[in-house]
Amino acid sequence: MTVVEKTNDETNTKVLAFDVFGTVVDWHGSISREINAMHLSVDGDRFALAWRAGYVPAMQKVMSGELGWTRLDDLHRIILDKLLAEFKIKHLNETQKTELNHVWHRLDPWPDTVQGLQRLKTRFTICTLSNGNLGLLANLSKHAELPWDCILSAEIFKKYKPAPETYWGVAKVFDVHPDQVMLVAAHQNDLDAAAQCGLQTAYIERPLEYGTSQNKDVIAHPGNTFHARDIMHLADLLAC
Amino acid sequence: MTVVEKTNDETNTKVLAFDVFGTVVDWHGSISREINAMHLSVDGDRFALAWRAGYVPAMQKVMSGELGWTRLDDLHRIILDKLLAEFKIKHLNETQKTELNHVWHRLDPWPDTVQGLQRLKTRFTICTLSNGNLGLLANLSKHAELPWDCILSAEIFKKYKPAPETYWGVAKVFDVHPDQVMLVAAHQNDLDAAAQCGLQTAYIERPLEYGTSQNKDVIAHPGNTFHARDIMHLADLLAC
Repeated sequence: MTVVEKTNDETNTKVLAFDVFGTVVDWHGSISREINAMHLSVDGDRFALAWRAGYVPAMQKVMSGELGWTRLDDLHRIILDKLLAEFKIKHLNETQKTELNHVWHRLDPWPDTVQGLQRLKTRFTICTLSNGNLGLLANLSKHAELPWDCILSAEIFKKYKPAPETYWGVAKVFDVHPDQVMLVAAHQNDLDAAAQCGLQTAYIERPLEYGTSQNKDVIAHPGNTFHARDIMHLADLLAC
Repeated sequence: MTVVEKTNDETNTKVLAFDVFGTVVDWHGSISREINAMHLSVDGDRFALAWRAGYVPAMQKVMSGELGWTRLDDLHRIILDKLLAEFKIKHLNETQKTELNHVWHRLDPWPDTVQGLQRLKTRFTICTLSNGNLGLLANLSKHAELPWDCILSAEIFKKYKPAPETYWGVAKVFDVHPDQVMLVAAHQNDLDAAAQCGLQTAYIERPLEYGTSQNKDVIAHPGNTFHARDIMHLADLLAC
């Protein structure tokens, strides 16, 4: 893997590829609200954070080969089953567990997301690049009215981010050079991996991604091509 | 491969998967017009028909294993290079050939397509199931303003229609039973293969798919779940 010199000439950019969970939709708020509304006598904030905390270790089992290719829906379900035991929630039947697992298909967008994407879509091809599986992303995007030109997923490349095949995969799908793709994400590790593959990068702050109980460092990293408060601000920066 | 009894209960249907070339967009008219506008002294109608006629044999080379996985853009280019020789078009440079090959990314929709899809999208998940590659389909859909919930392509399944993996692939992506998916196509062989995999089927007539110089048989086959004149008519039949 070589570090490719980034261009700051955004006129060259053809494709904006968006991370989804946290960047485009508010997983923490959506899940907390749904858990609290179920009156399970558990704290929605804690439950949402615990569910998300299980995500990286579960994915690492796939990336290490310990698990074969497993879609995020199935990883979410494995984590959920553990959490239901830990939080002592014992009365849900199979249909209710499936329905709860699909909360990830019903996440709400941040207030700036839909309008920001619509503005960016006038000048760029906008797509997802998410570890969510295709069905999850399609259902989520229908729910949140996200106007993608195309949904791309780790499921297509059979590799999870931050594997380089995912970032290069976007460039290959659209038959463009990696520096004609810009990854848009609220997570610096995702952007760092994309930059290593020669993509441009745009950081979106999302200070409330983990709710109000946790601070998130949203400081500007000089290595990113752009740093934006939210997606509307990114549209301003890209003159859309 | 077993024949699964089809249900006519469309209330069970969750996903409408659309064939694209001919069903949703007018490849013949779009390509004829562009060729004629180039003033190459060739007949646009004949050129468009010859380009499309090369498609099945080219795909069969991939399906037989003679060629490894090859995206439709690259198959189109192989056919185009042969046609340029046959039609004695010798003055195009590489950039112009690439640009001409991308005419498949700029096909126009039939007049009923966009409004029909918007109506169907209110009640169903609508996606493509096309042999076109993802980049082609995304560019085409942006050009024609096609409001898909998701773009699915042979490129995802690494099999071309009518391979059963493509039809079953749609059901797997959305985690539904095959009979909850309806293939919508203007080609009976595509619908027959989908029906063999347990999908519901809707035939769209498109009598002018091959232009006015060729007749197309658009007779109703009793095996299809629905038979519609166009996509607006399908929206009527499905009460959208």
